[in-house]
Amino acid sequence: MSFAKLDALGHRLEALEHALSILGADEATHMAVGGGEKRAEAMATLAGMYHAEASAPAVADWIESAKAESLSEDQQLALGEFERNYRNLTCLPTEFIERRTAATMRSEQLWRELRPSGDWDTFLPALEGVVALVREEAQLRADATGLAPYDALMDQYDPGNRTADLDATFGDLEIFLKDFVPEALAAQERRLSTRPRKSLNPPYPIEKQRELGLAAMRAVGFDFTHGSLAVSHHPFCGGVPSDVRMTTRYRTDEFLSSLMGVLHETGHALYEQGLQKEWSHWPIGKARGMGIHESQSLFVEMQLARSPEFWEFMLPLVHLHLGDDAIPGWEIADILNEVNHVERGYIRVDADEVTYPLHVILRYELEQELVAGKLEASQIPEAWDAKMTEYLGISTMDNMKDGPMQDVHWPAGSFGYFPSYTLGAMIAAQQWAALERDVPDAREQMRRGDFGAINGWRADRIWTQGSRWSTPELITRATGEPLNADYFKAHLKRRYLDG
Amino acid sequence: MSFAKLDALGHRLEALEHALSILGADEATHMAVGGGEKRAEAMATLAGMYHAEASAPAVADWIESAKAESLSEDQQLALGEFERNYRNLTCLPTEFIERRTAATMRSEQLWRELRPSGDWDTFLPALEGVVALVREEAQLRADATGLAPYDALMDQYDPGNRTADLDATFGDLEIFLKDFVPEALAAQERRLSTRPRKSLNPPYPIEKQRELGLAAMRAVGFDFTHGSLAVSHHPFCGGVPSDVRMTTRYRTDEFLSSLMGVLHETGHALYEQGLQKEWSHWPIGKARGMGIHESQSLFVEMQLARSPEFWEFMLPLVHLHLGDDAIPGWEIADILNEVNHVERGYIRVDADEVTYPLHVILRYELEQELVAGKLEASQIPEAWDAKMTEYLGISTMDNMKDGPMQDVHWPAGSFGYFPSYTLGAMIAAQQWAALERDVPDAREQMRRGDFGAINGWRADRIWTQGSRWSTPELITRATGEPLNADYFKAHLKRRYLDG
Repeated sequence: MSFAKLDALGHRLEALEHALSILGADEATHMAVGGGEKRAEAMATLAGMYHAEASAPAVADWIESAKAESLSEDQQLALGEFERNYRNLTCLPTEFIERRTAATMRSEQLWRELRPSGDWDTFLPALEGVVALVREEAQLRADATGLAPYDALMDQYDPGNRTADLDATFGDLEIFLKDFVPEALAAQERRLSTRPRKSLNPPYPIEKQRELGLAAMRAVGFDFTHGSLAVSHHPFCGGVPSDVRMTTRYRTDEFLSSLMGVLHETGHALYEQGLQKEWSHWPIGKARGMGIHESQSLFVEMQLARSPEFWEFMLPLVHLHLGDDAIPGWEIADILNEVNHVERGYIRVDADEVTYPLHVILRYELEQELVAGKLEASQIPEAWDAKMTEYLGISTMDNMKDGPMQDVHWPAGSFGYFPSYTLGAMIAAQQWAALERDVPDAREQMRRGDFGAINGWRADRIWTQGSRWSTPELITRATGEPLNADYFKAHLKRRYLDG
Repeated sequence: MSFAKLDALGHRLEALEHALSILGADEATHMAVGGGEKRAEAMATLAGMYHAEASAPAVADWIESAKAESLSEDQQLALGEFERNYRNLTCLPTEFIERRTAATMRSEQLWRELRPSGDWDTFLPALEGVVALVREEAQLRADATGLAPYDALMDQYDPGNRTADLDATFGDLEIFLKDFVPEALAAQERRLSTRPRKSLNPPYPIEKQRELGLAAMRAVGFDFTHGSLAVSHHPFCGGVPSDVRMTTRYRTDEFLSSLMGVLHETGHALYEQGLQKEWSHWPIGKARGMGIHESQSLFVEMQLARSPEFWEFMLPLVHLHLGDDAIPGWEIADILNEVNHVERGYIRVDADEVTYPLHVILRYELEQELVAGKLEASQIPEAWDAKMTEYLGISTMDNMKDGPMQDVHWPAGSFGYFPSYTLGAMIAAQQWAALERDVPDAREQMRRGDFGAINGWRADRIWTQGSRWSTPELITRATGEPLNADYFKAHLKRRYLDG
């Protein structure tokens, strides 16, 4: 039986994924500094084995003949994802992959070297090479999938995402935010005039911050029998669903960045821990994609952890773990002043919830034009500056480092990924709204630190669904309607104007 | 070129070994408790991939045709080991491996269940099954290698070990020890009458013990850019040569057991860290075998760390890390009273340096008879009791738990492994003697905590030699003569009679 062969293949791929995930997490947390070269060699070899297994010609035959077999609904859905993955893995010729890998590695290295000085002119030829390859890749993927070139790129990260839908939603959001940002800033100014930002009382010892982070993870539902928290330079949520490896980093002069980071990563972790175990070796047993994953982390970070209700149970935990003098005289509104502070800035990763989508929409618009050949790499600085000026009123013309050279994505050849971030923010808001219809006292429950019903709803609607549905189908099934920016807009109004 | 194919195979096997080693170490140190099932599944699948790659029929062809190729000396030695490994991996039919795996898993589980109560009668049928399979395996390995059956078993652990050589050496040692044990006990009694054992002053906090252990590792040459120390229930030295994962465990009521354990495992670690990096993916780049590996750990633990010279620099480190009141009034002789205490006992793993070889020789003699069919499993209790009474003057007839049921080796089907322990102790003593001929002031250097020349000698003679030579050849090349029990005997006399 051919499906049985795919099932066995799934077990082999899962074992290699398990090794790669744990080795990757270990590298960032526990590996000796001199172990990197051999680790890289081992992981490259294992990744090669994975690719060879997953893209073997026999797999195509198994997929074709499994279609004629009598399969359960789950098996049929799994078969569809086996086929989608196989097509994504095999639609690029080896010769092309080698050219692309060499070019993006070189470009990424050059970017790391030149970003600090913002030397765009030296970097440009490398980026031009990458853009040419990305256009070629988009066409190859388009030919294999029947999608439009940029859609074919996005489809790798969020299956089913189409510019035809996103253009409208992002356009709607863009118009809204251009007006909303100044309104939110004005409202913030009024709030701060009656309640100025309070001072912290450092130092905050790492061991105490760790205990606070663990308490926060436990409170929102992290399962410590299937995961742990360690320290790494760049925080991440890795490992495997049965053993999720979360990390954070600590500063002793403040504690909120680590705590909010831990809550964000816990959102990713809950999704992984909540996947269906019996399908873990099938594609439908994996998390759906980047947009949905980000919606789970932003649900915890934005919908829950930056709300006033959340801090009713969280503030006492801060006092418990950091001491009574940690934030002397602070009330919930003072915490919210910090965690919901809005500011126009150059840097996407430092942006707040309100301005962040404008950073993403800028990139989404530019990369579509780049892929379509309507914009050349050499024209990026002016295009970037024009949009930053239009959206946020700040110019980047003399600052390539904090302008088009700030992100690794383009230098690394990742086009079609950026929209996932804002997609995630919108899905998170839409989920909360749908959840509140089903669980009307969800905010009351959150006040008490009770996430049982909230997590139960998400487990049913999202986590256990794995990759059964495309991203848009999953959104509709989980929330009762297609992606709709109104929920995110309402969320922003509630938090930043009414608050 | 066929050798090139073996070389590429070596890289794939090294990557899988890397994954298995790090996943294994991670499981014992950092894995979430609920991660075990998926970890076991992933490791079993990766081990299956390793076996499939290493035992593929094509490998036999590559080995045969590589023999006709023009190879360097290193390549020729590597080819010999590729062939030896291939023969060891493929000489058992799959049908037999399945039968053996099922029987030993069942027997080992039953042993874990029955050992606490010492229920020999219930356990016996399972052990009888294992013994029958071990006889079958020994014959299969004998047929494939042209060795005698028990030699074929030993050859897996220490290539080149033969009963023809070991019988004489162990026989010599046995005769010596039967007289020496009472002499050493009498000498100890005299010493203790003038210097009674001193009291410890617990508690010894774990964090301080950890710092002391790290200081001891650093002192004897552990490279922290290629390794680390963690905590696990059963201490081990695992990981890979570029990233050695050592562990220990702590008790707060005393510190010597963890410290001596750390030094033992550091001996293993130095060997791994000292292997030739350019051959790391060839069999000759790996550590030679169990006896040589144990000789490296016992060299550090027994030859170095239980000597008076060692404690001249170590005692101040104890005070530095554990505090001045940690061992009030203790002198070096008081430490030696503890770490070199001799006592007749039932349990091999708790035995001291003097009595330990008798535990091993007993097992070595019995397992030869078991494999040869001269002894049946049902006769073990009487045979064991007779030898324990003869060698150590203690009877185990009413105590199966602390008699023939104490070790996991036989229940798990590991026959031919026990001699490696005492082989290691003898090699360690012989190495020290050879080293002292070349580095006459080695003891003076140790007094100062200077292990540069000592480690340099071992790196040249042992570590960098990897698996280029059989165990007996390596002993002769490193020390200038074949295995000779006289060095171990002289070491024991010096330490336990003259001291």
